Amino acid sequence: MAPQLDNYFKQVDDLQDKFIDRLREAVAIPSISSEDARRPDVVRMGHWLADQIRALGGEVELRELGPQPGREHLTLPPCLLGRYGSDPKKRNILIYGHYDVQPAAKEDGWATDPFTLTIDDKDRMFGRGSTDDKGPVLGWLNVIEAHQKAGIEFPVNLIMCFEGMEENGSEGLNDTIKAEAKKFFKDADVVCISDNYWLGTEKPCLTYGVRGCNYYSLEISGPGQDLHSGVFGGVAHEPMTDLIRVMDSLVDPDGKILVKGIADLVAPLTDDEAALYPPIAFTMDDLYQSLGSKATIHDNKNDALMHKMRYPSISLHGIEGAFSTSGAKTVIPAKVIGKFSIRTVPNMEIDEVNKLIQTHVEEAFAKLGSKNTMKFNIVHCGKWWVADPKHWNYTAAGKAVEKVFGVKPDLTREGGSIPVTLTFQDELQKNVLLLPMGSSTDMAHSINEKLDKRNYIEGTKLLGAYLHYVAEEPTN
Amino acid sequence: MAPQLDNYFKQVDDLQDKFIDRLREAVAIPSISSEDARRPDVVRMGHWLADQIRALGGEVELRELGPQPGREHLTLPPCLLGRYGSDPKKRNILIYGHYDVQPAAKEDGWATDPFTLTIDDKDRMFGRGSTDDKGPVLGWLNVIEAHQKAGIEFPVNLIMCFEGMEENGSEGLNDTIKAEAKKFFKDADVVCISDNYWLGTEKPCLTYGVRGCNYYSLEISGPGQDLHSGVFGGVAHEPMTDLIRVMDSLVDPDGKILVKGIADLVAPLTDDEAALYPPIAFTMDDLYQSLGSKATIHDNKNDALMHKMRYPSISLHGIEGAFSTSGAKTVIPAKVIGKFSIRTVPNMEIDEVNKLIQTHVEEAFAKLGSKNTMKFNIVHCGKWWVADPKHWNYTAAGKAVEKVFGVKPDLTREGGSIPVTLTFQDELQKNVLLLPMGSSTDMAHSINEKLDKRNYIEGTKLLGAYLHYVAEEPTN
Ligand SMILES: [Zn+2]
Ligand SMILES: [Zn+2]
Ligand SMILES: [Zn+2]
Ligand SMILES: [Zn+2]
Repeated sequence: MAPQLDNYFKQVDDLQDKFIDRLREAVAIPSISSEDARRPDVVRMGHWLADQIRALGGEVELRELGPQPGREHLTLPPCLLGRYGSDPKKRNILIYGHYDVQPAAKEDGWATDPFTLTIDDKDRMFGRGSTDDKGPVLGWLNVIEAHQKAGIEFPVNLIMCFEGMEENGSEGLNDTIKAEAKKFFKDADVVCISDNYWLGTEKPCLTYGVRGCNYYSLEISGPGQDLHSGVFGGVAHEPMTDLIRVMDSLVDPDGKILVKGIADLVAPLTDDEAALYPPIAFTMDDLYQSLGSKATIHDNKNDALMHKMRYPSISLHGIEGAFSTSGAKTVIPAKVIGKFSIRTVPNMEIDEVNKLIQTHVEEAFAKLGSKNTMKFNIVHCGKWWVADPKHWNYTAAGKAVEKVFGVKPDLTREGGSIPVTLTFQDELQKNVLLLPMGSSTDMAHSINEKLDKRNYIEGTKLLGAYLHYVAEEPTN
Repeated sequence: MAPQLDNYFKQVDDLQDKFIDRLREAVAIPSISSEDARRPDVVRMGHWLADQIRALGGEVELRELGPQPGREHLTLPPCLLGRYGSDPKKRNILIYGHYDVQPAAKEDGWATDPFTLTIDDKDRMFGRGSTDDKGPVLGWLNVIEAHQKAGIEFPVNLIMCFEGMEENGSEGLNDTIKAEAKKFFKDADVVCISDNYWLGTEKPCLTYGVRGCNYYSLEISGPGQDLHSGVFGGVAHEPMTDLIRVMDSLVDPDGKILVKGIADLVAPLTDDEAALYPPIAFTMDDLYQSLGSKATIHDNKNDALMHKMRYPSISLHGIEGAFSTSGAKTVIPAKVIGKFSIRTVPNMEIDEVNKLIQTHVEEAFAKLGSKNTMKFNIVHCGKWWVADPKHWNYTAAGKAVEKVFGVKPDLTREGGSIPVTLTFQDELQKNVLLLPMGSSTDMAHSINEKLDKRNYIEGTKLLGAYLHYVAEEPTN
């Protein structure tokens, strides 16, 4: 029998002012994890969140993570491990979110104070963390409260993992997940994460994959010191000339990767997967708007989506050591470091990709016949993640979306990496679902971050509905 | 009859401590023209120099140049216009030099205080401005004093032009030269400038040419703002990818210029000119040492010298707007500006070169098929200069070198531009000679700038001898 959710939905509507007050309180705490001076506010935010959960009857441990590696004068904010309900007859749903936020200051160009939730006449709620990720985290708390107020039995047991370092490399999180995989997290049947966004503004999506990222640097050096181009131009092998040629050999301006062997690693497109893209509510105009330009490589939606979601790409980010400020300087830089990265997709294995890239740049450099020297360096690698979108975790979420929004959700993948998805999947061996609350226009990480009131309130309904559906979805 | 110089040389030797004291006084005035706070010191230096010349019986005007263009709160240091002697039977030699210096601070890594002349056990005199250009300027004053003390008639009339803004773009100088070409400078028969360096440490040179420099920027933009490479990699035309390809199309790693038509503009090598390079006292080891590396394009001295002195070169200096600091940032920069320049040589006309470069980059960009936009910008252009090394000004200087040092000087060109040479030649239509005093190891513009006592004292002899020879050299 389909879950009866009308009372719950009505309760959410009735409580919406209270839920907005909860978000206002949270936004007011400037829990910026990447600024030393704000670290006490991050900790305060963790305690505030723990208090909220305890007030709703949940059990909470604020797990201390010790000093921050490499910056030992700072103590990491605690990882909140919580539990709501422990009925052995119910499924256990592990939810993840983060209570820290990106930096923000009025001077950066915010129209309103970033730490004062400000609602405009279009019901847009502006404030740092509104959509990333305080709104979604509080959504789960709202779900609990609405159930209590409506007198509806909670359909599952919740296992909570809310960290305070997501915007600063998630320091300490992987260790906690590994350590608790067979302890605190051991009963989890599936994982649900609400920390990303719809592709557009109208249609919800379920996200079942993200690309990985291998980041490289390429150091070319020769002269003992920076040189004057008048004195040495034409005489010395210039590291910049060498580097530009090697970087140029990686990718064409139309995005085609020129590294031999990469294309062979990419999983072929199946008919099943191909069928996922056309229904997605996304237009080239949406893309032009988010890009702020019409300079797209592809002229049709399906190609654009597939290249964002399921094909690799190489970006050239910049060059360290060369002349990089305004004006004109006639320098021949003695040492330059090119930075580039490749976005990876199934079935590109990190080591295999690294080997192909290294072979390519070493061959490209050898071809130059330069007497300079090159050092290839792997800066960091994060693997892609893809879940099975036919898993009962996803079909349950799909039903919840249809119930709340009246449409079938888009099944999407993200272009950028969200490393925690892979960690949960690998360590717990459970299906992981990304169930976003905010929309594409929310400007997470930018000035004027916001969450629409509709997304917050209907999103709270969605999270609750999901728990009801996932509680009784047949396993497949 | 060859000039009788023995008494003069002996007098220079006898006065050397006094000459060193003169340099010590000058170095003690931190006349840094590019630092606002030091501007009064530059002016003080101009007045000190004027007083010295007046004390020797010269006439001096400190020509005020008004406020500094673009930085009107600063007054330009005066241009010193001086004259020593006005015998209508004698030749008039115009000498140029500068009394301002590069920035210097002990904290930059100087072994000694940069504004205290410090002589070590190898008779190296360390101090900012010692070799660039206070030593050479005072060399002319030493010549006057030694003649007076020895009771030798001064062989020529000196017209002096000593500026105080050379290290900061020579603001105001061109206007002064133009304005005075037919007035204060009208009697000048030839010009002599002592403001460069020997190629090595043992053998003096006469410098008869410098390369020019056209500097360009290439701006490529597309996205409305910086993008995340995870979200837009493979979807957007990336300005960096476009720019790297266009920059790569300009020059090969072995220095070969790939811009069509440039090679055709270069004056062919005549047998006469080719014969000038082999005798030059310069070895590949000298080059390796100054480069701090063996990463030279050419393996033999003659090719290396010709590519430094008489062939054009393109250098890629850097990229503004891309990621340029340490670390790893997965940004797709929205707008990047590539900076590059070409060193020009006879017979490359500025406008012709600009046209070839512009055509090349526009064709290279069109080939990309990118939807980004490119803007080509000419930042600044300075023309090459070449004088006739067979002119009597040069043959006279060559005899002076042989008299003082016992060797024929190398005839060299500089790789980097010295714009004032061209201005004097164009405005006065007189032969210009560069007659350096310091050596290749003097570290002008670097920390630990020095002038060897030998170069200062023998250099003073050389400047005086030059005046005697140029006074009576047959015109050709
Ligand atoms: Zn987030
Ligand atoms: Zn975030
Ligand atoms: Zn200088
Ligand atoms: Zn100078």
